[in-house]
Amino acid sequence: MSHFELLKTCPTTKARRCRLVTRAGVIETPQFMPVGTYGAIKAMTPDEMMELGSTVILANTYHMFLRPGHELVRQLGGLHTFMHWNRTILTDSGGFQIFSLSDFAKISDTGVSFASHLDGTRFHFSPENSIEVQEALGSDIMMVLDHLIASTSDADSVRRAVERTVAWAERCRVCWSDHSADLWAIVQGGLFPEIREACARDLTRLDFPGYAIGGLAVGESTEDLYEMTSVSAGALPENKPRYLMGVGLPENLVECVARGVDLFDCVVPTRHARNGMLFTRNGKMVIKQARYRDDAQPPDPDCTCYLCKNFSRAYLRHLYMNGEILSARLATIHNIHFFMTLMSDIRKAIETDNFPAFRRNFLSAYIV
Amino acid sequence: MSHFELLKTCPTTKARRCRLVTRAGVIETPQFMPVGTYGAIKAMTPDEMMELGSTVILANTYHMFLRPGHELVRQLGGLHTFMHWNRTILTDSGGFQIFSLSDFAKISDTGVSFASHLDGTRFHFSPENSIEVQEALGSDIMMVLDHLIASTSDADSVRRAVERTVAWAERCRVCWSDHSADLWAIVQGGLFPEIREACARDLTRLDFPGYAIGGLAVGESTEDLYEMTSVSAGALPENKPRYLMGVGLPENLVECVARGVDLFDCVVPTRHARNGMLFTRNGKMVIKQARYRDDAQPPDPDCTCYLCKNFSRAYLRHLYMNGEILSARLATIHNIHFFMTLMSDIRKAIETDNFPAFRRNFLSAYIV
Repeated sequence: MSHFELLKTCPTTKARRCRLVTRAGVIETPQFMPVGTYGAIKAMTPDEMMELGSTVILANTYHMFLRPGHELVRQLGGLHTFMHWNRTILTDSGGFQIFSLSDFAKISDTGVSFASHLDGTRFHFSPENSIEVQEALGSDIMMVLDHLIASTSDADSVRRAVERTVAWAERCRVCWSDHSADLWAIVQGGLFPEIREACARDLTRLDFPGYAIGGLAVGESTEDLYEMTSVSAGALPENKPRYLMGVGLPENLVECVARGVDLFDCVVPTRHARNGMLFTRNGKMVIKQARYRDDAQPPDPDCTCYLCKNFSRAYLRHLYMNGEILSARLATIHNIHFFMTLMSDIRKAIETDNFPAFRRNFLSAYIV
Repeated sequence: MSHFELLKTCPTTKARRCRLVTRAGVIETPQFMPVGTYGAIKAMTPDEMMELGSTVILANTYHMFLRPGHELVRQLGGLHTFMHWNRTILTDSGGFQIFSLSDFAKISDTGVSFASHLDGTRFHFSPENSIEVQEALGSDIMMVLDHLIASTSDADSVRRAVERTVAWAERCRVCWSDHSADLWAIVQGGLFPEIREACARDLTRLDFPGYAIGGLAVGESTEDLYEMTSVSAGALPENKPRYLMGVGLPENLVECVARGVDLFDCVVPTRHARNGMLFTRNGKMVIKQARYRDDAQPPDPDCTCYLCKNFSRAYLRHLYMNGEILSARLATIHNIHFFMTLMSDIRKAIETDNFPAFRRNFLSAYIV
């Protein structure tokens, strides 16, 4: 099981500087986890990810279950060997993708049945299956299967979904066999503060090595995202890591660190890169814009990444307009570098008691 | 202008070990030039190409002329700066792509008129234009504009096309303004040995710093390719580099080195890689085949490239089947490494008087 150490707290906000040590290595938090859906961070080699300072990545259980299949990955030595990544891997439970990607998802107390979005094959996924698949993958941090419902659902529906989420968390805990890996629970509760608090309390009683905040970044307002994050983080134990699932944009990271979150994951840096969107400290940059056609400047003159040290906006735009793979690569390197540097700056700011000033300066320079 | 040195000749075949020094650097020959159509080797960074030992690449004048335009590239400091490559760049004349890609190509003594394959815009390209565009790009080795006709044309048509090719070579020579760069002529003549010999003689009289053999690898039989290469190479001066355009497959490289060729270019290593096809010393490997599904071996167990040192056939197949960009990257690294190693082995074999044995062994192991 992982070891978690609280190194420093911000005297003004809820921001905290911690260290999580899993069986696969050390993770300094606050930290961002890039997403490798199919066992690869899109467009990147694992060595490039290490060079960029990534210490933990996320892989999607739903996708790996469908292709190439968890038994094949187990047979080939687990996901670390398969994808040549020996640092920490966190896997989700598959639940979120079942509800967002698959067809005909139907839920009952036993689990979820659904049809693959690839070929329509029908599957049934229980809390027990989810852990079995994640253990086959060799995940270092597994997530419990949870019951997701629309964030616009009424309080009674949300309460019932949370009851099931807690019951399933307990069932996941029972069949979790290899305790060198972690199993983390997920706080749900829609946009109802009391339900989220109750859920956090119930899960804490079950004593997991870490907790996620789920059911957010699914279309709710930014105010709701921030409030639900505050409420959920505030109801979780101080001495355990807190992971906000599927978040997010740079401004979300800064704001949710201020609310006590340690870990984040999101497809934004990699997906936006493939769409020609670069993150800079002044906001987003859409490289296809005509004004960059003959612009000899680096995409971000303040950036020290491989793209910005060696290539111009005009060249990146040229690559993007011609559909060159190198465009996706260079933009992904830049965006991952941006997210890693942002998290590193956040950590330094907390260490030096400067987080409130850092937050203020970042948000005033960053145009959303 | 470049300097060319003949270091060693094979006592049995026509193979030769030479050194070409352009204004941008040293090229040991026989050598293979990867193709960077749009000013990027597809899926690769220039640094990766350097690490793989590439000393010269080809860029396509036709493509760069259409997008982003040669004047823009000139304004941004030339192609070397634009794409961050300070080693040698050879550019073709654009003629081949005009005939193979564009619409409504019409030829007259003044040049070729054609419609862009991208948006139908009409252009006229003369020998003078071709050199102007290549000089704007900052090419280290420019090629003359030649008149291409179907390899099945009759002798009279071929003879007339060759006359025009020689006349255009002379016009290119006249407007070639910066002699720190090279301008090379192209031997044409279809499948007629005497016409090719006459063309080579006429071009040699004009005294270019290098010569290409063109109009091959366009659908003719392998026997014809080899015979026309022999005839053309044999009619060219010993003390000048010989470049066989658009060739080719590994077996073609070995066989055409034996016929006196120094330089090659082809999209095969990069394009095949994106289609999941790997080159090995035993022949081609199609990674999507079901037999590789659970194969834990490196793609080529004898290979020392980044792919083969770190990943399995099963993983590469998984990436390929899911359309991951990393599949194209890893396969391209492998194939470029294969071509670079093959050329390096050919050079060593010539140096040690072992080329005939190398050729025999290579061809008996390599299943076409």
